[in-house]
Amino acid sequence: MSDVKKIKPQLSKGTRDFLPYEVARRNFLLETIAKVFRKYGFQQIETPAIERLETLTGKYGDEGDKLLFKILNSGDFLKDTPAEILAEKNSRAALLHITEKGLRYDLTVPLARYAVQHQDKLAFPFRRFHIGPVWRADRPQKGRYQEFYQCDADVIGSESLYNEVELIAIFSEVFQALQLNDVSLKVSNRKILGGLAELIGAEDKFTSLTIAIDKLDKVEKAKVLNDLSEEGFTENQITSINNFLSIEGSNTEKIELLKTFFSQNHTALKGIEELEFVLKHSKLETRNSKLVIDQTLARGLNYYTGFIVEVKNESGSLRSSIGSGGRYDNLTEMFGGRNMPGVGISFGIERIYDVMEELNLFPESVSQQVKALVAHFDEPTQKFAFEQLQKLRSEGIAAEMYPSVAKLGKQLDYANKKSIPYAVIIGSEEMESGLLTLKNLSEGTQQKLTVESLIDFLR
Amino acid sequence: MSDVKKIKPQLSKGTRDFLPYEVARRNFLLETIAKVFRKYGFQQIETPAIERLETLTGKYGDEGDKLLFKILNSGDFLKDTPAEILAEKNSRAALLHITEKGLRYDLTVPLARYAVQHQDKLAFPFRRFHIGPVWRADRPQKGRYQEFYQCDADVIGSESLYNEVELIAIFSEVFQALQLNDVSLKVSNRKILGGLAELIGAEDKFTSLTIAIDKLDKVEKAKVLNDLSEEGFTENQITSINNFLSIEGSNTEKIELLKTFFSQNHTALKGIEELEFVLKHSKLETRNSKLVIDQTLARGLNYYTGFIVEVKNESGSLRSSIGSGGRYDNLTEMFGGRNMPGVGISFGIERIYDVMEELNLFPESVSQQVKALVAHFDEPTQKFAFEQLQKLRSEGIAAEMYPSVAKLGKQLDYANKKSIPYAVIIGSEEMESGLLTLKNLSEGTQQKLTVESLIDFLR
Repeated sequence: MSDVKKIKPQLSKGTRDFLPYEVARRNFLLETIAKVFRKYGFQQIETPAIERLETLTGKYGDEGDKLLFKILNSGDFLKDTPAEILAEKNSRAALLHITEKGLRYDLTVPLARYAVQHQDKLAFPFRRFHIGPVWRADRPQKGRYQEFYQCDADVIGSESLYNEVELIAIFSEVFQALQLNDVSLKVSNRKILGGLAELIGAEDKFTSLTIAIDKLDKVEKAKVLNDLSEEGFTENQITSINNFLSIEGSNTEKIELLKTFFSQNHTALKGIEELEFVLKHSKLETRNSKLVIDQTLARGLNYYTGFIVEVKNESGSLRSSIGSGGRYDNLTEMFGGRNMPGVGISFGIERIYDVMEELNLFPESVSQQVKALVAHFDEPTQKFAFEQLQKLRSEGIAAEMYPSVAKLGKQLDYANKKSIPYAVIIGSEEMESGLLTLKNLSEGTQQKLTVESLIDFLR
Repeated sequence: MSDVKKIKPQLSKGTRDFLPYEVARRNFLLETIAKVFRKYGFQQIETPAIERLETLTGKYGDEGDKLLFKILNSGDFLKDTPAEILAEKNSRAALLHITEKGLRYDLTVPLARYAVQHQDKLAFPFRRFHIGPVWRADRPQKGRYQEFYQCDADVIGSESLYNEVELIAIFSEVFQALQLNDVSLKVSNRKILGGLAELIGAEDKFTSLTIAIDKLDKVEKAKVLNDLSEEGFTENQITSINNFLSIEGSNTEKIELLKTFFSQNHTALKGIEELEFVLKHSKLETRNSKLVIDQTLARGLNYYTGFIVEVKNESGSLRSSIGSGGRYDNLTEMFGGRNMPGVGISFGIERIYDVMEELNLFPESVSQQVKALVAHFDEPTQKFAFEQLQKLRSEGIAAEMYPSVAKLGKQLDYANKKSIPYAVIIGSEEMESGLLTLKNLSEGTQQKLTVESLIDFLR
């Protein structure tokens, strides 16, 4: 490697390195979530980063297709590309000849492929979770990356509403474990919006309706109603929509008002009934999360067909969505499998990380993985120090020794940089007496201990 | 998604899905290794899958460059490609215009970039570990994938041989924890081969010498000596090399013989002295791994400069290399950083997995993540069952309920498929008496218990 040209060390735009303390915190976050998933019977799966483009293309709309990272075929990739395509510099047409693989865009399409491909080997209803990176060729912005993690739990092949109840319980249990104590779970049911479209005779404009309502979180109601008018909704229709959006009160009151509003519409009534079931069985009294019916919730993705949920953090300055989910049908249809209904949730772990950082919620112990640094002064004390170190480790204590002979200040500085709370200092006196000096690095206090007492103390 | 063309669910060649039991086993393996890394003070880092091609190219030789997965630029990627390059279908020249990112090929070059880029934020000596996928456009074969995991621990910025001793201890501690009880750690020092080249006056042919000797594991010595002859080594030189390769005996005997062989060569004597230090401080008596000097060890990679190690599994039919490592200099040179020496090891986790599968070493408990399935017969018993389930979970017991009303046989079948060891069966009788039926699914026995006793039993 010695004749390699020197280059500037830098990341590809939109990607990140993680420093040790960040990995420790991310692991804490992901492990907390995974532990709850497992407690609820969800099994972890993994799929490759690289998928066939055939699997990925056409699933995320035209915009999504443009954001897929495509991998160049190996070898002489231009060989079989028709000359006229190259002469025209027709990038779009060239794609078909020079690339056949891409990086996964989410964990949902891989799940659909996986569930169909391995259906004979899986136990259905299939409760799986999946945590891993996905890639999107989006323009990088603050908080938006080209490579980021998703964290999903889904149940495939079951229509039971107990699944919805359990997924809500998972949300509240995780946020409680993370000490995110001011979180609201906004829930609704897509059938209610479907019923609204039927009620006002706008079934053909269902997508416009959901897209417009979905914006309510960001823009004023007047603007949404105006958008609807521009989309061709009549004044009567808009009045009904406005009445629907204006329903307010406690969850019980909303249920009653919605039942009255939709008294003639079976689709919406079915949705309301499903919502009632979920509310009735969700006992969140002991939790910090609030479960709030929000009939204005639309959830942009068009494939939701029943229950929908959106989680919002309500403390600190980052009051954004930190989770979401819903029920969908026909997930696996595109892969020709038998129809498998599904319901799932997704933790917005990149945002949760930012919120926890802001609120200082990561326990200090997370970055204190090493308990003690064994320090020394010269070759003989280092040799003795290394023997003591091995005793600590053989008792399961995470510890390390500064590897070369160096000034004590340098060794303690190293310990501080690594957030190591204790130093075991070994000079010739300690070597002779067998009483080791234990220094508490944050308080500056020290005491003398035998190695056995030291082990008891650190354990 | 409803008008999507149906396609066959299949993987991109050379990639894999992991079934739940495989992920559970892989997690057990990786978590066992990570735990030991942490105990020894190594901190986990992460780097992105996508790196700038500038960072990756030229580091792995011409063959390696060909095996880099390259990502097509987004948008109209042909626009700025000179027309003559396209007219000639010159794929190689086109690369410079249509791709600037690739997938990482290993974890070592990203480490070098990372250590230079973040040097002000890291504690040196920097003890890091990194576990994650890497990608190579190799021809897929049995046991060789285009996407596979690497698992590395390195110490950057320290010349102390205690690092070598610790890395050997990590190897032996991990293999003991995994119950891989017949493992040999073959160790040598690259300076010994360097000294051999000096001794026979073949410094200019050092690379040919190491490449030839590196093959000894796979081909007969006679073939290696013949190869050397074809590479232009003289008969005298080959005789010396043969004498060197023929040194045998216990570690102590080999050290003595090597010292005699190299009595006039300072390079080799330095290597032998380093090897002696490592052997003297490595106390593996209580471990199952054997530490064996193997002066014929070459380790193909040309960048090793001192200590080298290769781990071989010696049980079952898969007697292959399951780990390796060594000391290198100038890792970070290519990124213009100050010279940082390093020493590191790598666990061959894909192979270790295969060996453990063959030897049946994964504990059964690894796939038994859910302790109990709560079974029921109809809506009322399901409602009651769900309440019992919530009690189990609130006590930390991983459990689940079959989500819909179904025949008991179907529910127990589901439990068996997921390796759930117990079923809690709740009929109307159990509901009335509060005494729940606990069935041991492997033994077929059952007993009646209150929910409190059930919790004690399952915990």
